[in-house]
Amino acid sequence: MTSPTPHGHPPESRARHPHEHARSVAEHAAAVATLLQPLRAPGRTETLPLSRALGRGLAADVAAPVSLPPFANSQMDGYAVHSGDIPDGGADLETMPPVAAGSKPSVLEPGTAAPIMTGAVIPAGADAVVPIERAVPDHFLEPGRGGTVRLPATGPGTYVRSAGSDIAAGELALATGTCLGPAQLGLLAALGLAEVPVYRAPTVLLVTTGDEVVEPGRPLPPGKIYDSNGTLLEAAMMQAGLTVRRAGISTDNPDELRGLLRSEGQGADLIVTTGGVSKGAYEVVRQAMVDQPVDFLHVAMQPGGPQGLGTFDDVPFLGFPGNPVSCLVSFEMFLRPALSGLLGAPAARLPLRARLAHPLTSPGHKHQVRRGSLQPGGTVRLEGGESSHLMHALAGSNVLVHVPAGVTELDAGDQVEVWML
Amino acid sequence: MTSPTPHGHPPESRARHPHEHARSVAEHAAAVATLLQPLRAPGRTETLPLSRALGRGLAADVAAPVSLPPFANSQMDGYAVHSGDIPDGGADLETMPPVAAGSKPSVLEPGTAAPIMTGAVIPAGADAVVPIERAVPDHFLEPGRGGTVRLPATGPGTYVRSAGSDIAAGELALATGTCLGPAQLGLLAALGLAEVPVYRAPTVLLVTTGDEVVEPGRPLPPGKIYDSNGTLLEAAMMQAGLTVRRAGISTDNPDELRGLLRSEGQGADLIVTTGGVSKGAYEVVRQAMVDQPVDFLHVAMQPGGPQGLGTFDDVPFLGFPGNPVSCLVSFEMFLRPALSGLLGAPAARLPLRARLAHPLTSPGHKHQVRRGSLQPGGTVRLEGGESSHLMHALAGSNVLVHVPAGVTELDAGDQVEVWML
Repeated sequence: MTSPTPHGHPPESRARHPHEHARSVAEHAAAVATLLQPLRAPGRTETLPLSRALGRGLAADVAAPVSLPPFANSQMDGYAVHSGDIPDGGADLETMPPVAAGSKPSVLEPGTAAPIMTGAVIPAGADAVVPIERAVPDHFLEPGRGGTVRLPATGPGTYVRSAGSDIAAGELALATGTCLGPAQLGLLAALGLAEVPVYRAPTVLLVTTGDEVVEPGRPLPPGKIYDSNGTLLEAAMMQAGLTVRRAGISTDNPDELRGLLRSEGQGADLIVTTGGVSKGAYEVVRQAMVDQPVDFLHVAMQPGGPQGLGTFDDVPFLGFPGNPVSCLVSFEMFLRPALSGLLGAPAARLPLRARLAHPLTSPGHKHQVRRGSLQPGGTVRLEGGESSHLMHALAGSNVLVHVPAGVTELDAGDQVEVWML
Repeated sequence: MTSPTPHGHPPESRARHPHEHARSVAEHAAAVATLLQPLRAPGRTETLPLSRALGRGLAADVAAPVSLPPFANSQMDGYAVHSGDIPDGGADLETMPPVAAGSKPSVLEPGTAAPIMTGAVIPAGADAVVPIERAVPDHFLEPGRGGTVRLPATGPGTYVRSAGSDIAAGELALATGTCLGPAQLGLLAALGLAEVPVYRAPTVLLVTTGDEVVEPGRPLPPGKIYDSNGTLLEAAMMQAGLTVRRAGISTDNPDELRGLLRSEGQGADLIVTTGGVSKGAYEVVRQAMVDQPVDFLHVAMQPGGPQGLGTFDDVPFLGFPGNPVSCLVSFEMFLRPALSGLLGAPAARLPLRARLAHPLTSPGHKHQVRRGSLQPGGTVRLEGGESSHLMHALAGSNVLVHVPAGVTELDAGDQVEVWML
């Protein structure tokens, strides 16, 4: 709209805001973590069956209730033997009934060999396994007929997985705050646990704002753009294990935004808005929060500098900027790490080192976050420029490239830290 | 069980199997991809709203229906000007009504400046934006009163995002087979698309086998172990976007396994079993598949060598080995890459280079897959030994470490390829 004072707020309103100041990336990250601290309150855990706990953070230390393996067992299909029975030149041993996995074997008589299958209990009296491939004959004899097998000498413990060699009963299996992926859930199952205590998934109310923003699928009037922030952040949040409630798009009318937050925000653990936090004349989020304890500030970061943080009607609130790349960078730099640190989920991004394929420049007083594609050889190509509106370039990227504050120029071949998306 | 001939199949049955041979990792990967080719049949696509398409593979090329940005717009809050109006020393320009994002501005008269907000349409007649911070005064004047603002000289195009600078209408936005993550879905939204054609999620019937295997949560009799394969693979498959149907645990009775596959397999796109594919005496999966076109073979890989591949009652079938680490390695080496290649989803693992923290040895004739934890500095620590039963070590790993066939020794500091889990 071209009205000079939309919704009764003069353009100068920004100059009168009492909470304006600048912050480093680390300071803002710490503030977001503090804001979200209640997500780790004692009442915010639940116990889930393993198949529903994927991607959640473990809410208590888990000690191993059993050893893994629970008993000494064979690593190979072969013959269980007492190693002392076979001299260096090998020996012919009488064969016993075979030992299947899951069965309880008899004691191995001296001077005999028991066919044993992978995973089967090592019989008392045996201390090693000779693989079937090294036996003569190299296949199992027909059972019931008896017979002898020629076996080479073998050291005690060979091809035996001893009880507790992976983890002993009572040891810490997984620590509080571990993100539960397939391997961690598999370990809990191996330990016999069918359920696991995890942190509850936070519910986020997500609202995009702007008179210029139109829902995808509708006609696009002149001067308008489609809302990509809602889809982008909803997907990023879902991937991070959050429960996302979309409240659609608010216009630049602060009363409408306040009404939307109050009607849709019931029970939300966090409100995230996009847009309306900058220094323009019509900053709907700033205007809607005027009576709430919310700071609007600049983080020394590019893109994603303008940020809002506080509470709206006591619900934790984060105001991300309006450009899609700024939104994703805000999510990856602040919200995702805070959740990882508090709840163990989603898993933190692993910082990797890569070599720049091109030179770059960066404003020295800001932490610059570029988008790039990490190549198998370990170089990273920058995708698109510094600008925060380049969605197509973002969609061709697989990493965020960090250029810390204080760095103004980097050459091709210089090392940078990247985070895989 | 200790019965020498469980379920009527003598231990020698393996020796009579007609389909035994060895394969390289690449050959088996190609065979799995061929087996799963029907998943990309034309009828196997669906059109989903963006919010339900996360993690799916794009089933058609998408050309941009609009340009991004759709119109030239301001990159900053500031003043839209005609750059030729301001000489090197700056100029005092009369201010016009402000241009908000989403509004349709009037033509900019020569010698004037229009307050303009980030994202707003650049008025006809203007060709540059001066950020508010560089204006005197450095805040917007109260609208309606008029007045002048002093602005420095600026080059044409400064802080203007030109129409189509991210992508032009008609250009390829995303190619068939792109995995749809947050950024890709955000791009589709920015292009105004509310729905997207994707490949259907395959349904997998997952069965673990073995007389020795007990469901987690139940008592553990002597000689038995808990089933971790089911949980591990279900989670890995869910993470990869598959629909997983768990059919529980089959005993070592091949008739029971066949019955389970027939009763639970209706409509499945793929059957995956674990265990019973090796050279032991009681290999239930081999026995159950005796009348089916299934190959049992050894892949030159450690762990995960014994593999089954074919069809069971015309449903594609993969038989993974019985140890959990072997299962995960089989999934990551064969099933996941085949799905990535055919359907674009899940995303392929990006091969990274890392330096070994320790020396290692490897059987020269096999591709060895070790588990490791990649450190931020780019070194990789091996977690656990070569053995495939080490679930606790696997749960402490974040990468698979590849030691190709032909390599028998590596030193600390040597480079290896790793795949992040």
